[in-house]
Amino acid sequence: MDDNRTSVSVLGLGLMGQALAATFLKAGRATTVWNRSADKADRLVADGAVLAGTPADAVAASDLVVVCLSTYDVVHEVIGPLGDALHGKTVVNLTSGSSEQARDTAEWARKNGAAYLDGAIMATPPGIGAETSVLFYAGDEAVFDAHEPVLRLLGGGTTYLGTDHGKPALFDVSLLGLMWGALNSFLHGVAIVETGGVKAREFVPWAHMWLDAIKIFTADYAAQIDAGDGEFPANDARLETHLGALRHLLEESEALGVDTALPEYSRKLMEGVIAQGHARNSYASVITAYRRPAR
Amino acid sequence: MDDNRTSVSVLGLGLMGQALAATFLKAGRATTVWNRSADKADRLVADGAVLAGTPADAVAASDLVVVCLSTYDVVHEVIGPLGDALHGKTVVNLTSGSSEQARDTAEWARKNGAAYLDGAIMATPPGIGAETSVLFYAGDEAVFDAHEPVLRLLGGGTTYLGTDHGKPALFDVSLLGLMWGALNSFLHGVAIVETGGVKAREFVPWAHMWLDAIKIFTADYAAQIDAGDGEFPANDARLETHLGALRHLLEESEALGVDTALPEYSRKLMEGVIAQGHARNSYASVITAYRRPAR
Repeated sequence: MDDNRTSVSVLGLGLMGQALAATFLKAGRATTVWNRSADKADRLVADGAVLAGTPADAVAASDLVVVCLSTYDVVHEVIGPLGDALHGKTVVNLTSGSSEQARDTAEWARKNGAAYLDGAIMATPPGIGAETSVLFYAGDEAVFDAHEPVLRLLGGGTTYLGTDHGKPALFDVSLLGLMWGALNSFLHGVAIVETGGVKAREFVPWAHMWLDAIKIFTADYAAQIDAGDGEFPANDARLETHLGALRHLLEESEALGVDTALPEYSRKLMEGVIAQGHARNSYASVITAYRRPAR
Repeated sequence: MDDNRTSVSVLGLGLMGQALAATFLKAGRATTVWNRSADKADRLVADGAVLAGTPADAVAASDLVVVCLSTYDVVHEVIGPLGDALHGKTVVNLTSGSSEQARDTAEWARKNGAAYLDGAIMATPPGIGAETSVLFYAGDEAVFDAHEPVLRLLGGGTTYLGTDHGKPALFDVSLLGLMWGALNSFLHGVAIVETGGVKAREFVPWAHMWLDAIKIFTADYAAQIDAGDGEFPANDARLETHLGALRHLLEESEALGVDTALPEYSRKLMEGVIAQGHARNSYASVITAYRRPAR
């Protein structure tokens, strides 16, 4: 179904939308673009893109319509009124939003006779097109398969997550959360070692080595969580041992005048989980504090 | 200086001290042990260790004295009164504590004529002796060099950090903090994707891939921090862009009934740093919220 002449329309030319359209153009795809402020299209038009005057014109120009707008509300403002014009089209929505918005939009697309994939981009605009960049998609598998070659232009880590349109949003925020958690504690660690005259770059290789060790812990914890029996055997260290070690981080931070709010967060978290009876369990038991109640 | 007949004394036989002594014994080192409750030595004695009746006897038995007690206060209680008996000995203290306690203890050892290394163990007791296990040491380099072969029995990642006795403690708590930050946000992410029927083990490979991407960010941020010019160029994404994405994590967590305290922590952190003028800077600027004031 896909060949090099499949054209693409891109709606939304923020930094990310511009990167998407530029990548399609560079691959030789006929590319139509639309943006509320048309001047965002200037460079793309100079590089061969066709500027559509309206969203309807953009949708009419290609069977594959890639949407990357600021919010799902804007998505519905822009393509919501198009009605029948969407019939038979494939909409690939890369706008950031919630899992519920993704599922609702998929349902709206179904009612309008459009095929629909929801996606999430795990890269910055300059990363679009790179072999290592990951983009998640969900929706009908045949629709993904049909458009995979053109979507893969956007990143070598193009991945189909299944039929649940909400999954890309769930993976997106979960992985971003992992990033902030790791970055915050990395920067906190740098602030501590700096007090001993250590350069951040001296700390980096140890942080990287340690992150690799942490990967091994997460694999063990995932197996304990998936077992679903409420058992979290302390194969590495008990939660009470973690809390004991955490007190050293707290005391050191306090003594050095480095921020204590981050270790205090962990202290309250661990104490709360221990109070629920997990003192002799592994760190995986901390998930019980995060899960929605009464699953 | 080191040969296979160098004997070692181990003071303190908690789980970690037992693992240290057992590893020395397994390598064929003559090993003397002492613990306040002598029964902790039973298995080691069965394996060939000599049980010392007092700390003084243990110190007299070997030139190399490895100390692994519950706190630095206990270290001073146990070996503090030994006085002249320590003269000419090498004390390697693997007790967990603060950088200040390590530096003070080094000074105390110097006054008592003992060579002194302070260390930190980045492994659990079962990891002692493994090729991948990291142990940090600091103190006089010649002392480390002299004992490196026997210390390396405890872990292939045996590393000398320099002459500042406080460094192992600083690295220890900083890396543990990185672990808790990464594990907390990993478990939070699992709690989110679980709501979409995703198993933790399905999330793990993506978390690992993402941790590798995070490593690349940390290397860039370390260079910005070390430059020390207060510039944090947003080569990847601006802090205001991070805050925008964080709102999706917050809203998703709230909608799903998953814990919001962790993303709320990050929100307050980022808002505070942005209020200090870092909106268009990289995430590395967050270190300004962690550092001790007026450096």
